Amino acid sequence: MLFLSDNAASVHPLVWEAMRAADAPDTPYDGDALSAALDERFAELFGRDCAVLWAATGTAANCLALSCMVQPHGGVVCHREAHIEMDEGGAPGFYLHGAKLLLADGAGAKLSPETIRDVIDPIRDDVHQVQPHAISITQASEYGRAYRPDEVAAIAALAKDRGLGLHMDGARFANAAAFLGLSASEAAGPVDALSFGCIKNGAMSAEAIVLFDPAMADVARYRRKRAGHLQSKGRYLAAQLHAMLNGDLWLANARHANAAAAEIAGACEGRLMHPAEANELFVRCTADEREALRARGFAFYDWGDDAARFVTAWNTRDSDARALAEAIASL
Amino acid sequence: MLFLSDNAASVHPLVWEAMRAADAPDTPYDGDALSAALDERFAELFGRDCAVLWAATGTAANCLALSCMVQPHGGVVCHREAHIEMDEGGAPGFYLHGAKLLLADGAGAKLSPETIRDVIDPIRDDVHQVQPHAISITQASEYGRAYRPDEVAAIAALAKDRGLGLHMDGARFANAAAFLGLSASEAAGPVDALSFGCIKNGAMSAEAIVLFDPAMADVARYRRKRAGHLQSKGRYLAAQLHAMLNGDLWLANARHANAAAAEIAGACEGRLMHPAEANELFVRCTADEREALRARGFAFYDWGDDAARFVTAWNTRDSDARALAEAIASL
Amino acid sequence: MLFLSDNAASVHPLVWEAMRAADAPDTPYDGDALSAALDERFAELFGRDCAVLWAATGTAANCLALSCMVQPHGGVVCHREAHIEMDEGGAPGFYLHGAKLLLADGAGAKLSPETIRDVIDPIRDDVHQVQPHAISITQASEYGRAYRPDEVAAIAALAKDRGLGLHMDGARFANAAAFLGLSASEAAGPVDALSFGCIKNGAMSAEAIVLFDPAMADVARYRRKRAGHLQSKGRYLAAQLHAMLNGDLWLANARHANAAAAEIAGACEGRLMHPAEANELFVRCTADEREALRARGFAFYDWGDDAARFVTAWNTRDSDARALAEAIASL
Amino acid sequence: MLFLSDNAASVHPLVWEAMRAADAPDTPYDGDALSAALDERFAELFGRDCAVLWAATGTAANCLALSCMVQPHGGVVCHREAHIEMDEGGAPGFYLHGAKLLLADGAGAKLSPETIRDVIDPIRDDVHQVQPHAISITQASEYGRAYRPDEVAAIAALAKDRGLGLHMDGARFANAAAFLGLSASEAAGPVDALSFGCIKNGAMSAEAIVLFDPAMADVARYRRKRAGHLQSKGRYLAAQLHAMLNGDLWLANARHANAAAAEIAGACEGRLMHPAEANELFVRCTADEREALRARGFAFYDWGDDAARFVTAWNTRDSDARALAEAIASL
Repeated sequence: MLFLSDNAASVHPLVWEAMRAADAPDTPYDGDALSAALDERFAELFGRDCAVLWAATGTAANCLALSCMVQPHGGVVCHREAHIEMDEGGAPGFYLHGAKLLLADGAGAKLSPETIRDVIDPIRDDVHQVQPHAISITQASEYGRAYRPDEVAAIAALAKDRGLGLHMDGARFANAAAFLGLSASEAAGPVDALSFGCIKNGAMSAEAIVLFDPAMADVARYRRKRAGHLQSKGRYLAAQLHAMLNGDLWLANARHANAAAAEIAGACEGRLMHPAEANELFVRCTADEREALRARGFAFYDWGDDAARFVTAWNTRDSDARALAEAIASL
Repeated sequence: MLFLSDNAASVHPLVWEAMRAADAPDTPYDGDALSAALDERFAELFGRDCAVLWAATGTAANCLALSCMVQPHGGVVCHREAHIEMDEGGAPGFYLHGAKLLLADGAGAKLSPETIRDVIDPIRDDVHQVQPHAISITQASEYGRAYRPDEVAAIAALAKDRGLGLHMDGARFANAAAFLGLSASEAAGPVDALSFGCIKNGAMSAEAIVLFDPAMADVARYRRKRAGHLQSKGRYLAAQLHAMLNGDLWLANARHANAAAAEIAGACEGRLMHPAEANELFVRCTADEREALRARGFAFYDWGDDAARFVTAWNTRDSDARALAEAIASL
Repeated sequence: MLFLSDNAASVHPLVWEAMRAADAPDTPYDGDALSAALDERFAELFGRDCAVLWAATGTAANCLALSCMVQPHGGVVCHREAHIEMDEGGAPGFYLHGAKLLLADGAGAKLSPETIRDVIDPIRDDVHQVQPHAISITQASEYGRAYRPDEVAAIAALAKDRGLGLHMDGARFANAAAFLGLSASEAAGPVDALSFGCIKNGAMSAEAIVLFDPAMADVARYRRKRAGHLQSKGRYLAAQLHAMLNGDLWLANARHANAAAAEIAGACEGRLMHPAEANELFVRCTADEREALRARGFAFYDWGDDAARFVTAWNTRDSDARALAEAIASL
Repeated sequence: MLFLSDNAASVHPLVWEAMRAADAPDTPYDGDALSAALDERFAELFGRDCAVLWAATGTAANCLALSCMVQPHGGVVCHREAHIEMDEGGAPGFYLHGAKLLLADGAGAKLSPETIRDVIDPIRDDVHQVQPHAISITQASEYGRAYRPDEVAAIAALAKDRGLGLHMDGARFANAAAFLGLSASEAAGPVDALSFGCIKNGAMSAEAIVLFDPAMADVARYRRKRAGHLQSKGRYLAAQLHAMLNGDLWLANARHANAAAAEIAGACEGRLMHPAEANELFVRCTADEREALRARGFAFYDWGDDAARFVTAWNTRDSDARALAEAIASL
């Protein structure tokens, strides 16, 4: 019973189906009909104009989006536990040509105008210090916390006031929207660019870079090619994105994963390090308890010495979630 | 009847099958069993130790391989019509952090020790000029020409003598090997790294970076992650590579494409700009002739004002190839 | 008798004097009074608004100026014998983060709208090919040729038409202006940025980056610091630039060097590879002839197998120039 | 009475003299006799082989030294208040092509094996996290603290154990050596590279990059040219370095500055934020007190809201130091 991560889950049958349906040759790269339809498709979803590019990883999606906002001599404010800081092998340094991540604090790996200001206000406006060019937030955060619309709006207002771009890493955007019970548009808020995650949510190898300023897309397209991310058979990636939007599969999958997480969370009273708002649970438990759970067939990662991380996915079986909940309750 | 390119051909059924068979969850990134088996699998094919990484595009494969050989202040000797110079959107500049492509000549987009020396011998050994760190050749070349083993050996000897790395862009390596009637090992020769192309040859989204000095793999692995090319569901890419090697599908597919090209070439007497040694044909013909061919249902690219390029693929129908041959013959 | 290069000539007494006069402490970096006065000083010289930054080398000046015009995924059209291509150790690749130099032809290392178009017109407007972002020309050129005002204007018109920045490498700008008998403004024409060279013309370690769009200066200032070129005792560099402008020392020095070159050129009938328009002479002569000249005490560089390069400087003695002219005449 | 910084102090008369003496033309770049003699000169000083390159700023010296040790995908451990992190405008990101600064703690801006381990031990040895390639320490530290030989040795042992390069930013190395009463060799300890600062200590525009592994110099020389830091009249920089070593001027100047600081420190009982070990004093005082000092003619920087920073230099007048000491004592 796997609760290791959603990042290696199987591909959803409807995604497979869409990929197979894309098998007939079409124009290479992003010249195919499916790729060409993405802008409109996502514009409908978000209720505003956007340009959409596929990319094979969240790391590439995040970095390409940021490369439209940040010059090499600038910086990106992000949480000190943000994925771009902790888990992308220095990709922002590569894609942004040495631009700097400016690390801010905040409970649950969420930023706020206050913690952003704590970082940027002390920066003197002179050439000796790297100036912020953008802010990046993660929805849901690295600890599974969802930004509320007013929270995103407040950060966006600060960004606008300071002339900074605003990027949202949405590797688990669907889980946040599902938890909040909000539309895609409401869950994203007035960000300039969104990495709309699909791979953790049932796709195989396609994330959507959603650029709400279509002018940014010109840069992003050149940078994507230059980064070796313009696949010649791009239609198979576009097909995955379409499959995720069709019938709101993205939301259905996320709701399933969230529900499984919620069921487990119900058994974790007093143990949760962070409120369960998406599909990740950070659960205090001893080494003995973790051993006991593993003995009963549950696979998961330790989280430091005193906790475990459980992640549910679109395909987590209800019975597995129930079993884990019961096992934790019985510890 | 499509002769535009092999780069957007459908995915081979055995590749689909292998991808589906990889659907069960496994360790993410390249920790899965299929990815872990690649080194050994390719070592068998090439008869010498190697480390193998998958990558989603030939551009990424080429640039990651080169990043193991070339420092930012160095250069790469390549043909002035090489793919890395002409068609990768400046990716080598990005991946190699501003290292320079040093452009050499040679008929059929093939380099030789002489044309390489023409470029590197005039470079003074001082800091004012960019020094070569590596050589990159393309097998088969951008004009569909295959390097013979003695040709590769001669270039490799020069590379060794000058302390340069030797990279082979094998986007159509299979077509070259099939044409030459040689083993993979013989067709590659003593190169240090090979981009073993699969996407143009029936795969969907996986090329193999074959590093014959396994020590280079340590750099390549960090650089791949840093470039956002470490997919979390990497097993689907590894599966494609295994499928291509199984039963020598890579060779069978290339032989099919080559045979189709040869059939068409047979009708092009006096028209071929380059001997047909792989699956690309550069055929002199007037605008009127091209119009006539298009009117009969053939899709292909113009090649300048006085020629057309026809590319066959693993799935080119015999009847289509025959029809094109007849159509050209009847011009 | 030294005709090797002007790049290592002694420092002019008036430059020394100005540096000594700047010895009293002032605000560090470019906060001192001398640095602050540069914008206005050069605006007077050029008759239009500009922002001026000092830099310690022509390489840094060229690359910092270009970094205001060229994004990492773009390219710079320059002559294939341009200094930025041939002699800067790959600095443009470093400063422009992998942007590409797009090499054009032209007699005497001068570009023209035609040769620029030969390079940029074949570039397809797609992401597979690096797009031009700027043009760089050298005044006087690497072969000592001066662009006439109508020539610069024609290139500027093309640049404007294509949305490209226009940079002028003026390492020997003074020599060109002196030869043409034109004001600084006329000799520069409507370029966007000029590397106004002083070091070859009597300064020690200061070139002026002249940005005619002051908005570019904001980028240039950050990039200069980031490149480690913001010296804390910047007043000594600013002092050099002021000294060069005072009483038009820049012109006087260049006139002297040009006159010496002209005297020598007068003895080179039939031998000059390029018309002598500045202070560099490329003179056809045999190895024996070069040996004979060296035996008589002249130091200079070979230029290939069949020529020699003689460079005069602000401090070339009239008697040395005369002696060289006579020696060549007597060959 | 200036106590703002030592970074804009006047140039020492003996440095001026050496520069004037270098005025005769010599081979350009670093081919002159003075530059060529640097390796041997510094090898004598340090008692071990080294290669020495001049550079015009400490930022360039630090970054060029680090570029010999750190690959673009790696990281540099430094103190979170290190100059390379706080005050170099992102230069390390530029010179190291996006490599990351890994920030460690330590009182007085000094690192220790423990605080270094706190940063590097949690880094998993996988491609998702940036791996350390080098450590950089500052002697004297950004708070004017000197590393004792056993402290440097302990860090060097850790570096060696982990396969990391060790760099010392010696912008105020002379002040540390003078304070410690140690030879250059003892004050540097077994570091791999040292930025030997001269500009704050009486030079105009030359720092020495001292590479104790001469093999690193090959990379450093190419990188220096590529960064536009290879000045054509390099002899004027080499002359400055020679002047600093002649008769141990570097030590004499530092002793003078330290003595002035010590005199002032004697008046700061209970006010010093950090022990005074070099030529910088961080002195607690109220806004009113600072106003009072300024009213008496002292120029200095605020250090946050509750302190002031006073920096002495090679040319601080004894009477000024005494006056400041008395003024502080009388607050």
